[in-house]
Amino acid sequence: MPARRQVSGPTNDEPTCSIERSLQILGERWSMLVLRDVFAGRHRFAEIQSSLGIAPNLLSDRLKLLVEAGVLRTQTYQEPGSRPRQSYHLTEAGHDLRPVLAALQQWGDRHRPRPSGPSVLRRVRDTSRPVHVGFIDDDGREVPGSDVVMLST
Amino acid sequence: MPARRQVSGPTNDEPTCSIERSLQILGERWSMLVLRDVFAGRHRFAEIQSSLGIAPNLLSDRLKLLVEAGVLRTQTYQEPGSRPRQSYHLTEAGHDLRPVLAALQQWGDRHRPRPSGPSVLRRVRDTSRPVHVGFIDDDGREVPGSDVVMLST
Repeated sequence: MPARRQVSGPTNDEPTCSIERSLQILGERWSMLVLRDVFAGRHRFAEIQSSLGIAPNLLSDRLKLLVEAGVLRTQTYQEPGSRPRQSYHLTEAGHDLRPVLAALQQWGDRHRPRPSGPSVLRRVRDTSRPVHVGFIDDDGREVPGSDVVMLST
Repeated sequence: MPARRQVSGPTNDEPTCSIERSLQILGERWSMLVLRDVFAGRHRFAEIQSSLGIAPNLLSDRLKLLVEAGVLRTQTYQEPGSRPRQSYHLTEAGHDLRPVLAALQQWGDRHRPRPSGPSVLRRVRDTSRPVHVGFIDDDGREVPGSDVVMLST
């Protein structure tokens, strides 16, 4: 069980709501953007720092949080003549965040568009067909968001 | 065009990345939980405040941000003997956030589970079939996350 940190909103350590539990990790400022960078293939501290323009101590703190939460894992690498360093990679839990980031991206494309259009397109790897994020039933069929209900247990 | 506020991460007012533009609104602490409450049918200031245990001035600030961003709209209501008040409702852009919140919920269910299981189930309204959030191609077929690529334009 990864260490838990109190980072956002919820007033106790184990909120009932899964959205709140997710936001304990992802709701922290910069967490999502650090993850976006790792998804985009930036794995080294210096690469992420330079991409985000974030203070090194803050980035260090966010990476530690994401590793403790089991979303990123570290790997040691060593450039000739340098000391060994850590690079950062998605765990399975990290990869499972892809729909969260893609849903944010899709919403931004639609509701906070920029004049020159989306900077990133989502496509199927082999066919280049467009892909969107949505709701799917247990038969693999898309369900309109307005037909989805959330039931309390 | 709704007013824009600098609320998270990005170092300028119009980041290229749609994830960053979305997080300018949604990355602010409490924003997602306020939206979750409105999705759950809480529309009045006092209901949301009591549900979240958030300071009134902070809630007021978040609601203002979400209205300015075009995600919530206000409606006036008046209880007998009281002054007119505002209630808060999702706009179309707000409704379009459903996959974002559901993706966070799904991830929390899986990777930050609580012993007694999920507190909320996602179901199709008429059939009660389980629903999940995922990737869908332009033919309406589900695509595994690992087959989705993000292409820079």
